Amino acid sequence: MKFKRNERIGAIVKILSDNPNKIFTLSYFTEKFNAAKSTISEDILVVKNVFEKLSLGKVITISGAAGGVKYIPQISKVENKEFLVELCENLKDTKRILPGGFLYLVDILYNPQIAFKVGKVFASCLNYEKADYVVTMETKGIPIALATAKAMNLPLVIIRKNARISEGSSMSITYVSGSKNLVQTMTLPRRALEEGSKVVLIDDFMRGGGTLRGMEALMKEFKAEVIAKGILISTMEPSRKLIDDYISLLELANVDEETGKINVFPNKKVIDLFS
Amino acid sequence: MKFKRNERIGAIVKILSDNPNKIFTLSYFTEKFNAAKSTISEDILVVKNVFEKLSLGKVITISGAAGGVKYIPQISKVENKEFLVELCENLKDTKRILPGGFLYLVDILYNPQIAFKVGKVFASCLNYEKADYVVTMETKGIPIALATAKAMNLPLVIIRKNARISEGSSMSITYVSGSKNLVQTMTLPRRALEEGSKVVLIDDFMRGGGTLRGMEALMKEFKAEVIAKGILISTMEPSRKLIDDYISLLELANVDEETGKINVFPNKKVIDLFS
Repeated sequence: MKFKRNERIGAIVKILSDNPNKIFTLSYFTEKFNAAKSTISEDILVVKNVFEKLSLGKVITISGAAGGVKYIPQISKVENKEFLVELCENLKDTKRILPGGFLYLVDILYNPQIAFKVGKVFASCLNYEKADYVVTMETKGIPIALATAKAMNLPLVIIRKNARISEGSSMSITYVSGSKNLVQTMTLPRRALEEGSKVVLIDDFMRGGGTLRGMEALMKEFKAEVIAKGILISTMEPSRKLIDDYISLLELANVDEETGKINVFPNKKVIDLFS
Repeated sequence: MKFKRNERIGAIVKILSDNPNKIFTLSYFTEKFNAAKSTISEDILVVKNVFEKLSLGKVITISGAAGGVKYIPQISKVENKEFLVELCENLKDTKRILPGGFLYLVDILYNPQIAFKVGKVFASCLNYEKADYVVTMETKGIPIALATAKAMNLPLVIIRKNARISEGSSMSITYVSGSKNLVQTMTLPRRALEEGSKVVLIDDFMRGGGTLRGMEALMKEFKAEVIAKGILISTMEPSRKLIDDYISLLELANVDEETGKINVFPNKKVIDLFS
């Protein structure tokens, strides 16, 4: 089968965009489209241009034996700001307030469109170049963590609250969850992580940072190095968290059960990262 | 800014492919690319062609006031078969066998590439045209359910084992899990599903069907109608399940702890669906 330039470009965009951070060799495309290397190289130049002109992310060529072309998802400054502001507006809905000042968040956290945008933001502002895994803890953070893992082209690892017979021998630790002030356990199958791995931690919500600190401790048991930490929403109080060097996309100042007011903002540091 | 045809086509492919089952109006593109309607219509014809020629899914135009163009993800017959066969090969690895004859599956279930391919298969073989939600139960099925929800452009709902204060008032039911023969609970926030919704159930593994039947019972409490059920792996024994009308992609015949042999096959019915 023969393809016109238009068609090849459409197809290359589809393949790259469906497989972020995966390297495709030139030969992959020359065989698929039954075309010369020079032709495909020109096509890729056009593709690069489209992505740049419309801020759809980056397409880069890697030279050498393991070389080829890959797509790196990146959200633009404008799109990032718009998204985070819109997310805050959505969060400010008074109906979200639950008894005890909790916020109903699962409709947002489980929305695929939102989850994938969050994943793209994390892939744009966390340094995952050397990472081997994305790690999260069940349950509410799983969708954004999966979307992040997809954007970074990394396997996802899910820490569980209790060990399961269907996951084999596992390592468990105890930790103090800040919000409940309870000693809890977290557990991970022995074979879930290779020793000496580098990992990115992702979670949906952080108050004191107890859970995240527990995750760090568990990673240490696996001799894994945490190289980045991304959180969707962190509370402003307590201002001193149990962990450092994290990036949270939104900051929750307070929830006023009486007036129904929810104060939540895009994290200025994240907005500035895109400048 | 002006765009060449090549560039517009690349960009249209990217936008459609990132947003399966979402309708984009012609005006959306004419504004974005500063181009005439007739020009964009021609672009879309080329895009349609590319998708068809390379079996990348379907691009359809919808006429009328709410009209526009949308991309429907569909896996081709060949790609589907290759994928399911490869998945079985991966599953047959003797090292997967755990004490008690369980199979270690989480590396597969949490792999974003695999999860998204599973989502695409479900979107190709389940009828979700009228569905309002994709529903799963925590934890292991969440990645494939999110990928399915993304492909179908539906919100995801996650049933939990226990009610949470951070999710508000909820409805709980008890059910008998077949594999453990234990009475367990499942729970869903009252506001997670609108009454009278139509839902697609997704789960990773089914033995007797007790969990799926529990999910059906819970849906009834929400006056929701289950219109499709997709399962990644079902066991051949017991052959009579507690639920009907499900589609499982793979069938697990048996796991022999002694010889290390795992017999698992693509479901012939699913393969045939693509003929």
